[in-house]
Amino acid sequence: MTSPDSPSSIVGTAPGLPKTARGERTRTRILKAAEETFGTLGYHRAGIADITRAAGVASGTFYTYFSSKEQTLRELVQEMGRRLRAHLERETADAGDRLEAEEKGLRAFLQYLRDNPALYRVLQEAQFVDESIYRRYYESFGERYVRMLARATDRGEIRSGNDEVRVWALMGISNFIGLRYALWETEMDFDDIVATVSDLLRNGLAAGGGREKS
Amino acid sequence: MTSPDSPSSIVGTAPGLPKTARGERTRTRILKAAEETFGTLGYHRAGIADITRAAGVASGTFYTYFSSKEQTLRELVQEMGRRLRAHLERETADAGDRLEAEEKGLRAFLQYLRDNPALYRVLQEAQFVDESIYRRYYESFGERYVRMLARATDRGEIRSGNDEVRVWALMGISNFIGLRYALWETEMDFDDIVATVSDLLRNGLAAGGGREKS
Repeated sequence: MTSPDSPSSIVGTAPGLPKTARGERTRTRILKAAEETFGTLGYHRAGIADITRAAGVASGTFYTYFSSKEQTLRELVQEMGRRLRAHLERETADAGDRLEAEEKGLRAFLQYLRDNPALYRVLQEAQFVDESIYRRYYESFGERYVRMLARATDRGEIRSGNDEVRVWALMGISNFIGLRYALWETEMDFDDIVATVSDLLRNGLAAGGGREKS
Repeated sequence: MTSPDSPSSIVGTAPGLPKTARGERTRTRILKAAEETFGTLGYHRAGIADITRAAGVASGTFYTYFSSKEQTLRELVQEMGRRLRAHLERETADAGDRLEAEEKGLRAFLQYLRDNPALYRVLQEAQFVDESIYRRYYESFGERYVRMLARATDRGEIRSGNDEVRVWALMGISNFIGLRYALWETEMDFDDIVATVSDLLRNGLAAGGGREKS
């Protein structure tokens, strides 16, 4: 990250993007402070002054990297999405097949959400600032997920089917299970939850012979 | 509804609850206007004057039935939940078993959401007014749903399992599938979507022999 030839997509020459490693660290610190501030106060109540105070930078520094509070939210949501995806990729890297990756992925997601509760709140609130922020987050997540299911079908790990619909169903499961068991309940162990969802994804709900019925 | 002995739970003597059928109609009209107004303008931008204008009542009339905008939101969310549940009960009444009820219920939910898009927006926004409104909506929905799954298990229609976790997974599926295919896309036919989710719920995703793996 110290070279201008760094492959990082963050370092660049577009306006607002830092040109040095130090600038990149400052920008990252402002985004982290925005995450905490939006997560605690809510987007509407949070001011730029709250963000710069939390980041320990002057307010002029904020405007070196961001043009507005809304742009900060937009970039923060993208950054949170990248961070979560990287986390899930790491945690599912050694899964033997797609269904094991789903199981490990759900567990990793629940733990991540419990450790980073601001993610959920900021994302939900973004809907009311600009729905396209929220929509792009899930669409971008969904596109990669569809490719993963398609590869799993090719490898014979799951049956073929409408993977886009399946992906939205799977994201819906993680979202509500996360809300209920990682955010609202902060103590519950994830073992039984993950086992129940994994069984649903592997086998469905039908009492013996479900496969023949459809 | 014309008798004071009406069994309706709405007619009552508690402060703010109408004592006559006419009063009940006015209160219902105000709630309907609040739904439209919150759905269009958003809760924060909508004022009580917007609600009374949409309902065609004087602002004094509003305060006969509601103490504040927040109380209106709270009662509206409860009322929307009751209406949706009644709709789903009607639409799934002739289902032969729980898995058929899930299929009919998802289709009915998607159509309902497409016809009543304010439901989603008002409910989502309620999270940021008072999270307990949002939480109570889903908890109340979930409690009934758990009882339905338990009865289906007793009848041998589905395998036994942790029904509370299953219910939050099922509600998550409906929520995201509804967001994606009923609200964001307003033209798409529901047949393939419902068939895909139904297949997931009946059979899971595992390629042949999933049941043995778990």
